Amino acid sequence: MTNLNEELIASKKMFDGRLLKLRVDTVRLPSGKEATREVVEHPGAVAIIAITDDQELVLVRQYRRAAGEVLLEIPAGTLGPGEEGVAAAKRELEEETGYRAKKMTKVFSGFVAPGYSSEAIQFFLAKEMTETRQQTEEDEFIEVDLVDVEACLDLVKQGKIKDNKTIIGIMIADLALKGELA
Amino acid sequence: MTNLNEELIASKKMFDGRLLKLRVDTVRLPSGKEATREVVEHPGAVAIIAITDDQELVLVRQYRRAAGEVLLEIPAGTLGPGEEGVAAAKRELEEETGYRAKKMTKVFSGFVAPGYSSEAIQFFLAKEMTETRQQTEEDEFIEVDLVDVEACLDLVKQGKIKDNKTIIGIMIADLALKGELA
Repeated sequence: MTNLNEELIASKKMFDGRLLKLRVDTVRLPSGKEATREVVEHPGAVAIIAITDDQELVLVRQYRRAAGEVLLEIPAGTLGPGEEGVAAAKRELEEETGYRAKKMTKVFSGFVAPGYSSEAIQFFLAKEMTETRQQTEEDEFIEVDLVDVEACLDLVKQGKIKDNKTIIGIMIADLALKGELA
Repeated sequence: MTNLNEELIASKKMFDGRLLKLRVDTVRLPSGKEATREVVEHPGAVAIIAITDDQELVLVRQYRRAAGEVLLEIPAGTLGPGEEGVAAAKRELEEETGYRAKKMTKVFSGFVAPGYSSEAIQFFLAKEMTETRQQTEEDEFIEVDLVDVEACLDLVKQGKIKDNKTIIGIMIADLALKGELA
């Protein structure tokens, strides 16, 4: 394999916000030339594929400023400082939806936009759930929706799910119900 | 359905780069309180699920500064100013991999991180390909890899694919080959 790595020459902080930081890196390319890379720093996130005993997926509906619309998504949230993925997944599921999961298993992790964001999402499969009550944060307004996994998959095929982590979550739920997940 | 919308009060530009812009919006929540939202503005992208006549998926390997490692991904790229998705998909596939597709069909579109990024990726299914030659940009170093779709799906299940759009692309390729795509 050829060497594809880029060597870091310099890094400049451009923004330091509540959720995000942004920096511009200057790198040396494999060719020896220099280039710049704009990098959004994000603490990482968890997303929860929560399947009820009736084979329904727990979804949330919320307004997304960056998308400019209300989206139907699987529950998800940002990792707290030093927080383990599984703890964050249990916390977010309960806060956003009011469901508490006995079983919470990590599936895999994926970068959301490796061209510019450091954010990786850890996907968890939640099962054996009991209902408690939703406890959203002060700036979160979230509606919970239960949708049959088969129906979810049809929504994906019809292009009606507009969020990448949710498309993944639905396909994983389908594989899990078919017993095709390792 | 309750009103989940947030009303925009003010918007402040914080960064204006080569690829990204970043702004901080102040919004009024459904409760009447105010909150801030950090929004990364991105022109949007295309990703190409390119399946050869031998049922192999065309993948690319490249170093990703934001991820800090070399990733195996489906070909993808940013929309040019005013560029149509299908044109961008044909262009990116040919530039990054050297494959020219006779058939390029849009599957759906998904936001990569609607919590903070405006980027939506349009997914395209490419078929009936002929080989030309790779023509990467000056700051792109890309290796092309052909992997059997079945083997790709195993890599996803094993957690070896670390990029969300690629996980989606592989699952779409699998559905397409099984004739299960609408």
